[in-house]
Parts: sequence; C-alpha cells; structure tokens
Amino acid sequence: MKAHPPVSLSDIKPDLAIEAHEMFQGQHEGEIPGVSLVKENFSLGCRSTIKVLDDQGAQAMGKPIGTYITIEAPTILDSDRSDHEPVVEALVKALKEILPDKEQYTILVAGLGNARSTPDALGPMVTSRLVATRYLFTLNDPAMTEGLRSVSIITPGVTGVTGVETAEILEGLISQMQPDCLICIDALAAGELSRLHNTIQLSDTGIHPGSGIGNMRKRINKETVGIPVLAIGVPTVVQAGIIANKALTILTDRLEHAGDKSSMPLLITQKQREEVINEILQPFGGSLMVTPKEIDEQVDHTAQIIAKAITLAVHPGLATEDLEYFLH
Amino acid sequence: MKAHPPVSLSDIKPDLAIEAHEMFQGQHEGEIPGVSLVKENFSLGCRSTIKVLDDQGAQAMGKPIGTYITIEAPTILDSDRSDHEPVVEALVKALKEILPDKEQYTILVAGLGNARSTPDALGPMVTSRLVATRYLFTLNDPAMTEGLRSVSIITPGVTGVTGVETAEILEGLISQMQPDCLICIDALAAGELSRLHNTIQLSDTGIHPGSGIGNMRKRINKETVGIPVLAIGVPTVVQAGIIANKALTILTDRLEHAGDKSSMPLLITQKQREEVINEILQPFGGSLMVTPKEIDEQVDHTAQIIAKAITLAVHPGLATEDLEYFLH
Amino acid sequence: MKAHPPVSLSDIKPDLAIEAHEMFQGQHEGEIPGVSLVKENFSLGCRSTIKVLDDQGAQAMGKPIGTYITIEAPTILDSDRSDHEPVVEALVKALKEILPDKEQYTILVAGLGNARSTPDALGPMVTSRLVATRYLFTLNDPAMTEGLRSVSIITPGVTGVTGVETAEILEGLISQMQPDCLICIDALAAGELSRLHNTIQLSDTGIHPGSGIGNMRKRINKETVGIPVLAIGVPTVVQAGIIANKALTILTDRLEHAGDKSSMPLLITQKQREEVINEILQPFGGSLMVTPKEIDEQVDHTAQIIAKAITLAVHPGLATEDLEYFLH
Amino acid sequence: MKAHPPVSLSDIKPDLAIEAHEMFQGQHEGEIPGVSLVKENFSLGCRSTIKVLDDQGAQAMGKPIGTYITIEAPTILDSDRSDHEPVVEALVKALKEILPDKEQYTILVAGLGNARSTPDALGPMVTSRLVATRYLFTLNDPAMTEGLRSVSIITPGVTGVTGVETAEILEGLISQMQPDCLICIDALAAGELSRLHNTIQLSDTGIHPGSGIGNMRKRINKETVGIPVLAIGVPTVVQAGIIANKALTILTDRLEHAGDKSSMPLLITQKQREEVINEILQPFGGSLMVTPKEIDEQVDHTAQIIAKAITLAVHPGLATEDLEYFLH
Repeated sequence: MKAHPPVSLSDIKPDLAIEAHEMFQGQHEGEIPGVSLVKENFSLGCRSTIKVLDDQGAQAMGKPIGTYITIEAPTILDSDRSDHEPVVEALVKALKEILPDKEQYTILVAGLGNARSTPDALGPMVTSRLVATRYLFTLNDPAMTEGLRSVSIITPGVTGVTGVETAEILEGLISQMQPDCLICIDALAAGELSRLHNTIQLSDTGIHPGSGIGNMRKRINKETVGIPVLAIGVPTVVQAGIIANKALTILTDRLEHAGDKSSMPLLITQKQREEVINEILQPFGGSLMVTPKEIDEQVDHTAQIIAKAITLAVHPGLATEDLEYFLH
Repeated sequence: MKAHPPVSLSDIKPDLAIEAHEMFQGQHEGEIPGVSLVKENFSLGCRSTIKVLDDQGAQAMGKPIGTYITIEAPTILDSDRSDHEPVVEALVKALKEILPDKEQYTILVAGLGNARSTPDALGPMVTSRLVATRYLFTLNDPAMTEGLRSVSIITPGVTGVTGVETAEILEGLISQMQPDCLICIDALAAGELSRLHNTIQLSDTGIHPGSGIGNMRKRINKETVGIPVLAIGVPTVVQAGIIANKALTILTDRLEHAGDKSSMPLLITQKQREEVINEILQPFGGSLMVTPKEIDEQVDHTAQIIAKAITLAVHPGLATEDLEYFLH
Repeated sequence: MKAHPPVSLSDIKPDLAIEAHEMFQGQHEGEIPGVSLVKENFSLGCRSTIKVLDDQGAQAMGKPIGTYITIEAPTILDSDRSDHEPVVEALVKALKEILPDKEQYTILVAGLGNARSTPDALGPMVTSRLVATRYLFTLNDPAMTEGLRSVSIITPGVTGVTGVETAEILEGLISQMQPDCLICIDALAAGELSRLHNTIQLSDTGIHPGSGIGNMRKRINKETVGIPVLAIGVPTVVQAGIIANKALTILTDRLEHAGDKSSMPLLITQKQREEVINEILQPFGGSLMVTPKEIDEQVDHTAQIIAKAITLAVHPGLATEDLEYFLH
Repeated sequence: MKAHPPVSLSDIKPDLAIEAHEMFQGQHEGEIPGVSLVKENFSLGCRSTIKVLDDQGAQAMGKPIGTYITIEAPTILDSDRSDHEPVVEALVKALKEILPDKEQYTILVAGLGNARSTPDALGPMVTSRLVATRYLFTLNDPAMTEGLRSVSIITPGVTGVTGVETAEILEGLISQMQPDCLICIDALAAGELSRLHNTIQLSDTGIHPGSGIGNMRKRINKETVGIPVLAIGVPTVVQAGIIANKALTILTDRLEHAGDKSSMPLLITQKQREEVINEILQPFGGSLMVTPKEIDEQVDHTAQIIAKAITLAVHPGLATEDLEYFLH
C-alpha cells in the first residue's frame, strides 16, 4: 500500500486567502499589517477583495503579495440555476479587473486537475466547455473575429497519470506561443465545509498545483512563466483531518463551557490532537477528503459558471445571443 | 440549496454484512442466533462467509436471509498489482459458488452507480471493461462460443440523472430477455475507513441501489426480478458522520480511561452526539462522504479485479491467453 | 476478419422519407398515390411534410403509414451558429404538432446509437445534454414543476457492445414506467451527400435501430411498445456504395450525352454495377461509410439543436432565461 | 458553411511509404534509385522495411530520408484477437530497432489526434492505455524501477479544438523535460481500402500532424524538436475522392478492355477526372472520408496492440505477468 502521510495540523494551509485572513484574525487582535480587505455585497452574494501589500502581509497570510478576490454566493448550490446569473456577473467584473487592460491580447486557459476524479475535475470541466478562438485569427478575416480575443486551451492532466509536471507543459507552451496572459482553473481544498462549492477565488498570484491536497509541485506564476497568471479556484473538498479536529474542538469547547476543565490536558497540545486525529483517520490519514455526495452536479454547476464568465470577460463584444455558440 | 438531510446515527446501517456482524458482536455476548460465520485465509487475504439462516438472524443483522462472502485483502491498495492475482482467484472461486450450478446459463451484468462521480463509478467502470458475448450465440456457430456463456451488459445510470429507477430498467429488461441470472456491481459505503477499497462483498440477496448513501430505492432481488441476483460491492466511501462520531468516541474513551467521568453526560445520549455531529457537518450533514484522494486509481484497480473475476467465473473454458480479448 | 456484406443496391433504402419520395418521383410520372407532400419555407430553410396515407402509399415509399416532417437548413453546417436559431424554432413547431395534444403527459427520451463511434453518436449526445425532470414530480411541490412536464432519459447503447437489443430495453422499461410518449433520436444514413448534417427528420412511425446501416433489428413503434413513438433522425453518413454508384452513373450519363452508346452494355444491369462497386469497395463492401472529417463538430451542433428543441417543445412554460438550466 | 476544399488528385499523397513505393513502381520501370526495400514474412503477416537513402529517393517517394517499417497483418481485423499476438511481437521487434540503443533512456509518448472523432482517435486511445513510469524514477527506490524505463505521456488534442498547434506543445515540453526520444502515434489516411486497420507503419522521420487529412501543420521531427522522433501510424480512413477515382478507373479499364476507345477522351485528363469526382462529392469534396462502420472496435483493437507493443519494447525487464499492470 502506498504510504499515506499522517495528518499534520500545521501543514493544513488554507487554499483560500479569505480563510487565511479569518484564521489570522482568529488568533490576533486588530488589523493584519500589510493586508487590506474590502467587502461588498452584490445581489445574492458577497465579494471580498484582499490585497497582500508587502512581505509582512505575505508572512502573516502565508500567501504571496497580490490581489485575491473571493466571490461567495450560497445560491451556487441552488437547484434553481437562474440564481447563478448574479454570480456570473460578479465573476465577469472581477475577471476584467485582473485581466490585461488593453484593446487586444491573447489568452491561454489551462484546466488543471484530474478529469478522472470528480472532486479534482473542475479545471478540465471548464476547458471542455470553452471554445478556442485563436484559429479564427489566423484566417485574416476581420468579420470572423469582431468582438473577440484570441483564446487557446490546454488541459495538461495530472502528473500521477502523465508523468509530466503541469509547470513543464505550461512553461514550454508559453515560451512557444507567447500568449499575453494565462488563466488557470483548479479545484481547491477549503478549511470549512460551509465554503464547499459556493465560493470562487480569483487571484493574480499564480497557482501551486496540488498544494491544497498535499502534492507540492512547482509554482506557476509571473516569475516562472513570464506572463501574468490569473488563477480561478473553487473549493470542492475539505481535508478529513479538519473534520476530526473540529469534532475535538467542539467537544472541548463544550466541556470548558460546562466548567469541566479536568479533561482539558488530554487535548491541550497540537501533538495530542494530531495523535487522536491520526488514530481516527488511519490507514489513509492526510489523503482523506470530505466531499458531498452530489459532487458531480456541483462541479458541473461551478464549471458552467466559470466557463460562461471567462467567455464574457475575455470577448469584449460578444452579443448575448451569440454566447451559447462560444460555450459547449 | 437542496435540503441536506441531517446525520442520524441510527440510520447509518453498514452495507457490509461483515460490519453488521461485528457491530452486533460489539453489542452482545456470544454467537448471533440464526447466523453462521466461517473465516478462511488465502494467500495475501482472508475470506469470511456469513450465512443469515432465518428471520431471527435477519433481524439481528439487519440483512436479508442469504449468503454474504467478504474478501478482504489489503494488497488491493498496493501499487504492485501483481499482488491482485490471489484476490482475483478468491473472487472467481466465490462467484462460482453462487452462480447457477449448471452447464449453460445466460447472464445479465448490471453496472450500477454514477459514471460521472468517481466514488460512485465502480459499477459503470466494471461494465465498460466487460465484453458481451450474447451476440456470438445468435450466430449458430459452435466454434465461436466454445467455452463461453452468454453475457449481456447494462449500465442503467442513476435516477438523479436519468429520472429512471434502476429497478424499472432491470425488471423490464429481465422480463424481456429472460436471462438465468443477474449480477449487479455497485459502490458501497463502509462503516470503517480500514475497509475502503480493500474489501469485496458478494451476496445472493440482491441489491438496494443507493441504500448506502441515503437514497432508498426499490430493492432488486429474486423476489422483485424473478431470477437469482448476485451482488458485488466494494466500499469506496465512509459517511463523514462516522468520522465525526469516531472522534467523539475516541475522546470519551480517553476521558473515561483517564478516570474523568464528570464530562460524560455531555455525550451520553445518541441525540447529544448527533447534535454535535450535525454542528460539525453543516451545511451538508448526511450527504458528506469521506474518500481517499487517489479515488480514481483505486476504483480503477477494483474494477479491473472484478471484471477479470467475472469473466473467468462466467466463461468456463476461457484459455488464459484469450482472457485479454474478453476484457477491454 | 468479420465477413463484410457485399453492397446490394436494392438493399440500400433511404432512411429519409423525403429521399424515398424523390426516388419514386425519379422513376415514375406524376403524383404518388396514397402520399401527400406539402413544402413550406421558413427563415433560412425549408420544411416538407410527407404523409403516407394508406397501404398503397406505404408500398410506393417503402415507409410505414404516418407523418414525416423534414427540416432542411444548410445553415446547420455554418460556423456562425446564431443561424441555428430558426432551425430550432422550426423543430419546436414540428415537435409540438406530433407530441400528445394534452395538458400533462410524461415522456421518455431514448438516445440510440453508439457513443464510442462519432458518426453514430447523435442519440447519446442528445441525451447527455437533456435534463431529466421526472424526479421533480415526485417531490409533490407544484412550485418545482410549474411549466414543466416529466422527462426521463435512457441511453441504451448498441447491441454489438452490450448484447442487449434496443427494443428489449425500451419495451421492458416502457411497460414498467408507463410514459405517455417515447422520443427516439438516432443517426441516419442519407442517399445524397448534400443532405449530410443539414437535414432533420421527424416522424410518428417509430424507428428501426440500425436499419440505415445494415443491421436489421426489431422495430420500435406504437405497435411494439404500446405508446406513440416520435423519431428524430439526422443523416450523418452516406453508404460508400452510393458514392461509387454515383460515379458510374455520372460517367455513363456523360457517355450517353456524348452519343456514345456502344459502352452502355457494360453497366446496363444492376448486377453489373454491383459487381464493379463491390470490386471498388472490397474488402469492406457494404459496411463502408462516407462522412466528413469534421464529424465531431457537426454531430455536436445537431445534438445541441435537437436537445434545445426537445426541451422547449416538451416544457410548455419554460422561460427563456431558465432554458440553459435545463440543458447540459 | 465552412468552405470545403475540392478534391485535387495530385494533392492526395499517401501517408504510407509502402503505398508511395507501390505508386512509384506502378508508374516507372525497375528499382527506385535511392530507395531500398526488404520484405519478410512473420507468422500471420508480413513486414516491409523501406529505406529512403538519399535526396533522389526522397524525391521519388515524396518522403523524407529515413527508415519506414510496415507491418501488414490481415488478422488485426479478426474477431479472434489471439491472432493479434504475432503482430504485437513484430511491432516490438521493429520498435526496438528504432528506439535508442542504450541501457537507459527516457521517453515521451504523444497521442496525436482528436479523441472526440473516432476515426482520428487512435493516438489518444493509445495514450489512455499506457502507464506513465517517470514518477517512479523520482522516488529513488531502485526496486520500484527495476526493468523499467521512464515513460511520460502527453495527449495534446487537435488545433481545431484547442487553438494550440501540436508542434507548439511538443517543442515546448521537450525543451522543458529533455526526454531522450519522442514516440508519436497518429491515425493515417490510406490510399487503398485494403490497408484500413490492418497495417501499422513505424518510421524514424517524424510526423506531419493532419497531413493525411489535409490540414498541413508544422512538422515534428528530429530537426524541429531536437531528439529522435519515432512515428507510429495506422490508416483508419481513405479519402472519398480515391473511391470515386477508383470507380472511374475500373470503368475505363473495362471499356478499354472491351475495345471501346471512343469514350476514353471523356476521362483522359486528370482535370476531367477531378471535375467528375468533385461533382460526385459536393458539397464536402476533399473533406469526405471513407471508414468502416465498426470503426470504434477497429481503432480499439489497434490501440490495444500498439499500447502493448510500446510497453514491451520500452521496458526491457517487464515480466509477462506484470504486463497487465502497465496497461490500462
């Protein structure tokens, strides 16, 4: 059996900047130095813009300097999908803020993750819905490309299946194609169940394939690939260790609340907690994920939202009635 | 948002007979009346044969009268897949014990579950590997069917996607085709993480689609479809409620062991436990599943093992060198 | 090697009623007794309604008594898919004429054909885009089903892969589910290249799985399944024998036109022609199909058109803004 | 409608060197200068080794200087797949002759073509069956890699869908990964129906994606990617123009044979022939392909043969009993 890594609570770092922010605030008083946060509501949801401004902020957040926009909308989980429209709009607006601010540019969209494993299939599901337009620009017929920008698509697969690192494919391809911007879509791990499938994070700081689920691979960002990298992620799983830890926390809170401090020593240290958690989660430990049973529907919905938002944000002059022809 | 059912501990009934047996023995002294259990080791694994002999046994086990064979083999999880061979052999042997005991018979194999959701895709993955031979028997050329039996395949999909109940498809098709035997393959939910992806259960009592994961659908068994139904299942998930409950159990055990009984009242009733568990698991509650990150590989391995074993068990005269031509 | 059937010109019967009609008129003077034909233009296309009124008409056409509506629209092949909208509208109108004329009814949609073989994948591609609503009707919440009808979906696969006849699945399932109407979608074979991928045929006479491509299977119609059967088909291939035959025809026409009748005897009989055609097409003969290289795109476009039209025709009160939520 | 190119007989160049050779010999007397050909039989088939030795040979053949091995075996089409084994063996032998002649090397395998279009899906079907081993070599555990070489896999998709040229992905990735050798698998177009699905060509001269079916893309060979490129191809289609042309040829041969020369002028020039052919094939012209109805089975069989042969040829010490664990 493949050696499964034990759970290490200190290794569980939130993929979402908004969670890193909450975590820091849960442990410290006041503002986070070097970090700004602005919250706004939109119809049916809320948007947070976190800016990590300097090294001090990066240290506090455990996240690189840059902008992180989080769209939260419980309605993404709704069976009534007409409620998804405001989310698409909020996402289009956020994408346009981060995409290059010029008339024409070319874009490469990369769908990261494992198409064969539903909880990790968000990236490939988004790229399978997008329509590449780069070919149209080679025809030298302005009527064919009016209102469009040049979009190419890559679905690199996962290293475990292909033996190829995502960074190797993307770096190589970008050096050949010279697009102006890279958009990466990937499934993330959340720190809270309440964020699953209803939160979309955008950032301009690149991506760390597999970071949320424990496989540290080479980072993909402006430094490594030479062009701006816009990352879009949706949390589709929570590490099982977090669930087990939460059970312990709730119980000790209750004991404490009941004035029973005699049992506290049993769980006082992180090491003791990890011991209990690893006992619960053996033999799989840190590789166990929690995900809702309807994972296929939910990944399908968020993939649809993201594909639609990318298409609308990237092609400035796409008439609404033509949109469906630019989505599979 | 779809209303997610809360976790109800009393509703979590193990799909595996071996777990129902252990659970009963954990709560009662001595033998289970109306139930027999025989354990045997085989190379690299162990087989348990549980027979539920009468209504008293059925009541105690929460399982219908019939035979339940469990193949346990930790090597299924191994990356060295040559260790899978003894599991295939044990499964072939068990299948032959339950399959009709006559020279010729025809078989319908149904791959239940949702091909789009990896943890639920075991059934469709097995049927996608099998080769149907029924057509060969219509050619009236004995040379083409020597050593073979007539196999047909159906992959009915899940009600949530198709609107059609599995039982409706199978009952209808069986009344049309009149096969001698039905084999159903389905993913199960385990009560213990240690059983995930390394346990295969065979039974002659039919199948309850979706029972392990909370959707009670119409039972498929000899009574409902009129022919023997052989069910093959592999646990691919554990309900998250079980993990949370285990965390509480371990902690209270430790408290008790430490002689600290003062805090016991906090968790003494099942209702109190469920309250805590539902607090942990909100907003998804009973629909949350725990599964290893490598779910795609593991379902692939067990699907390969089961498809190979069915092919070897069903076709009595299949030469080893021809086996690969009867598997995709 | 599987014995490939030789081409037999008299066995090549057009799947399209409109072609049967043209063929008859090519060979006879005047009206076809027992058959009516009405042609209408719509924006960007044309619709023909053929009614086979009695046995005499059925004999002449080689088609059962009933209604055959053909939508012809060259724009289906366009890369500008906004030109598909009038085709969707014409199809919705035609579907509504054939669907049951009552307030509420339940529908089963069957996607026939082989999902693994692109030219034969139209049916499965349509059903993969449809959303089943039958489940919503079990919730007893009128708000969930307002404006909708109950739709279920089945994708039975092909006999060559599953060993199961399409008729066996459909007859069995219909006897279980008792829907009010069956819609079958299947790829057809055309008699003319000019009809490929730009013609959609609707009929109320049922379907003959595999008839266009030589596998005569059991017919699925009101007589065999007990409920009205609406068939939707699109020609995706032309038999290669037709191409070869056309080459011979064009050449002999030219010879004749050039006043050279001395060579006519070489091709005067159908048997002589078949001899030449089978020489050209060996070793595959009648199993060879002609199809455009962009087959995947073209099947995708027609599947999209048909799925959209079925959804709009079946659900009477579906608001335009909700349509996309009822299509994958 | 996309403008479909007319058929131009002089543009139809055979993908198979063996066909180029036959074509030259059909038009000229004697040996081809600068080209050698050796034929050998093996159990159930025959192997031809063509060497294009110099520029004169390259000119005559219309193929770059290098080695072209053709494995011809009618049994590939057999439903009795045990007859495929000698083909696998012949292919392994040929692969070993062309693969690097050293103890250790690393390999990148690229499956070219369109997974969504069955006649073009050979490449993706081969890569979906291969198991990447490169990851094992990063574990620094010699036991894990004994008898193996490092294999990585890429399935780049087609430009029409992704907007990315195959050459851009491969050149970029090779510059990043620095493998010692590239193996490309692609579907080819044959000049003769009799070669469909029963001929496998190996060459060391690289590949021209889409060349057989009319899309001239950037060549992938040692000059462009800097490492040896081994190409494996199987003809899965014949251009429809070839079928039409053959009909004309057979007919004129018959006329000539019958002593009727008066009609010859009608078809004497290539331009006249093309006129007739384009009349037959309109409106699709040069984009029409001929392929057998059972295309999915046949591509599946050849993909299985090629995946097995690559695995056996690349991993020198793979025990037969472990083979199935290195193939999906």
